[in-house]
Amino acid sequence: MTNSPYVLIMAGGVGSRFWPASREHLPKQFLDITGSGRSLIRQTVDRFLGFVPIDHIFIITHKNYGDLVHEAIPELLKHQIIEEPSRNNTAASIALGSMKLSKLDPEAVCIVAPADHVITNEQEFKSVMYKAVIHAHQQASIITLGIEPTRADTGYGYIEFDKSDESPVRAVKAFREKPDRATAEHYLNVGSFAWNAGIFIWKLSVILDSFSKHAPGIYNILVQGIDVYNTDAETSFIAAEYPKTERISVDYAILERADNVYTIPCDIGWSDLGTWTSLYDQSPKDEAHNVALTSPVFFDHAHHNLVLSTNSKLVVIKGLEDFIVIDTDDCLMIYPKSEEQGIKRLKESLKAKGFESFL
Amino acid sequence: MTNSPYVLIMAGGVGSRFWPASREHLPKQFLDITGSGRSLIRQTVDRFLGFVPIDHIFIITHKNYGDLVHEAIPELLKHQIIEEPSRNNTAASIALGSMKLSKLDPEAVCIVAPADHVITNEQEFKSVMYKAVIHAHQQASIITLGIEPTRADTGYGYIEFDKSDESPVRAVKAFREKPDRATAEHYLNVGSFAWNAGIFIWKLSVILDSFSKHAPGIYNILVQGIDVYNTDAETSFIAAEYPKTERISVDYAILERADNVYTIPCDIGWSDLGTWTSLYDQSPKDEAHNVALTSPVFFDHAHHNLVLSTNSKLVVIKGLEDFIVIDTDDCLMIYPKSEEQGIKRLKESLKAKGFESFL
Repeated sequence: MTNSPYVLIMAGGVGSRFWPASREHLPKQFLDITGSGRSLIRQTVDRFLGFVPIDHIFIITHKNYGDLVHEAIPELLKHQIIEEPSRNNTAASIALGSMKLSKLDPEAVCIVAPADHVITNEQEFKSVMYKAVIHAHQQASIITLGIEPTRADTGYGYIEFDKSDESPVRAVKAFREKPDRATAEHYLNVGSFAWNAGIFIWKLSVILDSFSKHAPGIYNILVQGIDVYNTDAETSFIAAEYPKTERISVDYAILERADNVYTIPCDIGWSDLGTWTSLYDQSPKDEAHNVALTSPVFFDHAHHNLVLSTNSKLVVIKGLEDFIVIDTDDCLMIYPKSEEQGIKRLKESLKAKGFESFL
Repeated sequence: MTNSPYVLIMAGGVGSRFWPASREHLPKQFLDITGSGRSLIRQTVDRFLGFVPIDHIFIITHKNYGDLVHEAIPELLKHQIIEEPSRNNTAASIALGSMKLSKLDPEAVCIVAPADHVITNEQEFKSVMYKAVIHAHQQASIITLGIEPTRADTGYGYIEFDKSDESPVRAVKAFREKPDRATAEHYLNVGSFAWNAGIFIWKLSVILDSFSKHAPGIYNILVQGIDVYNTDAETSFIAAEYPKTERISVDYAILERADNVYTIPCDIGWSDLGTWTSLYDQSPKDEAHNVALTSPVFFDHAHHNLVLSTNSKLVVIKGLEDFIVIDTDDCLMIYPKSEEQGIKRLKESLKAKGFESFL
């Protein structure tokens, strides 16, 4: 390996399914939603500081969250925080970040990772990252991390990989949309499927070549700015041109179209914390299967609940089964865990009733 | 009627069954526990301001709550707030207050009322008070308000009154302890029983004669201070002597022993707000039988709940049945309504665990 890889952290998400803890003005990546004492974005940066220097970490976010990123990671310099003027999905976001970084070192490897995931096995994560970075250095590979499934989850896309391949880095055969239950069970059993975690490793020159080939619309808009990136003129260029890019995920735009895609199936204690229930599943439980993300919480004849009080109140819960209890400065939500998909509709209905300020 | 009656408001209670809203340092009489915009003590004072002038209203409380009373009723002068150095139950409290007031006007009628009750029919209450005051002026009567029972409640003491008496002010035949269910149903059916509300009306000379006769221990201690009451020397006398008085309720000490006791059975929308459930019973409900003491609260597939957020948060509750939800600055309690008697034990267990500061 020549130079240290770059890390591009994607921090523009709105975390809408984590309402009422996550708000439009303060989404979940900026919250200590796991009760660890650190926000998710801080945890993500710290995870990478184990093997890249701080000046190789860049964060791309929506312009509304630039100040939040500065506050969360105060040691980052201004140029390490890239602000998007509009939400154009992951393809444009990654293309923009990659072009800026490629001007620093086009042959460097770049790791792209969301700011709001949890990874509990940091040692294994680091080991997997080294394998991926070496592979990306050695050949023109597009690598997406594959999470070995632990249950027949119907909420994730799956990566089908070449089981005959003996190397830790496997060629990807196909991407599969979120499956139904039976298909998910099949995927779990055959052992050649992994969850697509949205964590990517590639050389900057390789991913930009792929954009040029598979997503020329996005590429051609953003490449016009190649001379101004990392200069004072960059902001006005991005403000004018970035919003014109197609809104498409990097998975659709690049990974499903490219023929040099690889995965590393691994078990790193990953969760995308997509919903309160996934946070519950991910968290340590007491003997009554309750999760208290903050303390003190006293449960009595209460089971399978998830409790978060952002002010670390004394919480007393009796006789409650399978609920999500979220207490913030201005909202209290008590909601059945099994119906959490209703939170989205709930927010729409609150908006209709004039409670936008709580969203 | 000669002079305006005096009102002696008893505001020394600790409101322990209203935890976690009510705290040892801030008991329920000082809280807006009904969501009306006014604390219970403020409501109580305002109720009497309809027919006595402010300078005839006196409040007796524990010394720890003197400042809270001043804050709650800022128009009271210092001498109108009587501070007890110890909690010695209602007999001593009433004897002390009555002696002080009797020095102002021994032949005045005094109304004694707790600071933390709710009365929703203020017009009827006022009408009943006039009848009681007139009766107390005309004869040496000890009057205790009788609440016409609306259900076979086993949580109250009952007054048995003379049904043959045609006057609105009825002679009391006996006081009955909290009955069992069958007895309570009998009381409800026969129509000659009322709940003992702890609201009393008597002439100061009459109640002090009764103390002298029926509770001479308390009387003889406190009468020693008769010369110093309402002077600067009063505080040290009370501090030294008041704690020596017997700890007994005025019901046991006087009412059950006297032969000149009367009641006025009435329907004034009274509740002693003894427990969260009694507050629930007392409060207006939505079509799903939920009580939201503060707003905004959104219920969805939730019934028979009581919700209070002292910060008037946006509260969202789905799928909850028959719960008490109390949210304060530093505590959140979610507790089955049917098990509210467990709150007392809960507090003991919190104390044992070192959480005294939350009690």
